[in-house]
Amino acid sequence: MTVPLQRVGCLELILDTPRGRGVFSTRKIEAGTVVDTAPVIILNKEQFDNYIRHSLLQHYTYNWPMGHGTTRKYTIHQAIALGLGSMFNHSSWRQNVGWKRDLGKEVIVYTALRDIAEGEELLISYGSHLTFEDVEAARLEEGEEDVTDVLARIDI
Amino acid sequence: MTVPLQRVGCLELILDTPRGRGVFSTRKIEAGTVVDTAPVIILNKEQFDNYIRHSLLQHYTYNWPMGHGTTRKYTIHQAIALGLGSMFNHSSWRQNVGWKRDLGKEVIVYTALRDIAEGEELLISYGSHLTFEDVEAARLEEGEEDVTDVLARIDI
Repeated sequence: MTVPLQRVGCLELILDTPRGRGVFSTRKIEAGTVVDTAPVIILNKEQFDNYIRHSLLQHYTYNWPMGHGTTRKYTIHQAIALGLGSMFNHSSWRQNVGWKRDLGKEVIVYTALRDIAEGEELLISYGSHLTFEDVEAARLEEGEEDVTDVLARIDI
Repeated sequence: MTVPLQRVGCLELILDTPRGRGVFSTRKIEAGTVVDTAPVIILNKEQFDNYIRHSLLQHYTYNWPMGHGTTRKYTIHQAIALGLGSMFNHSSWRQNVGWKRDLGKEVIVYTALRDIAEGEELLISYGSHLTFEDVEAARLEEGEEDVTDVLARIDI
């Protein structure tokens, strides 16, 4: 299976913002543009609970549901977002980039929620309210658990 | 300080290669092209020794020398490469992508060592022989330690 690693070509990292590193655009990005496709490294519950939870990397993990064969059951693992996924800062009211997990392809796709101006910072929501539906949410929603919560990123 | 996040626009991830995931090019890339600029997350020795060393992520770390003020002394920390840095497979004899750390900007820059053909996998060397000099190697080489070894990535 092949995953195109879409990324806009106009991004830069500014190191010394008030919140540390941040991702900015050097030109206008149109609403709907895929700004980054970030592969993830999946850590199972044991790995996360025993090691990663106690480290700096706990702040960089996304919940990552892993199914059990053909059943609707799944376990919540944790995933470290590569690409620029771990570089976007958070805003609950100025977010301009949405994200969705592709559980099968093991990537998170980040998309402009509206036009983003030249010089503007790209901001995502780390909260539990997904900005748009996860690729596989529909499948999992057939189960009994509250998928909106299950799929939500850990608040940090 | 600003870091352009250079990335060629022709990369794709193939999930089911004999070695798991791998990065491939959909068109020719010319020698010398920056294929990716990967920010890193730096983990100090305590974080690494206590937690990360015991986890799956131990396989994804680069040595990362951190200086002590204006002295020439430094401590070797570990860094997780974001971007595509952790997705490139290894080849000691077919490597076509070189990498160098930029310690000040906290990124690793990956560059085509030769022309890369359409459909070819991008491969780096994980070994201790750097494919080209680190940005700050010259500064550190003024010290007493063996910088070639110090800067080398952990073999995995």
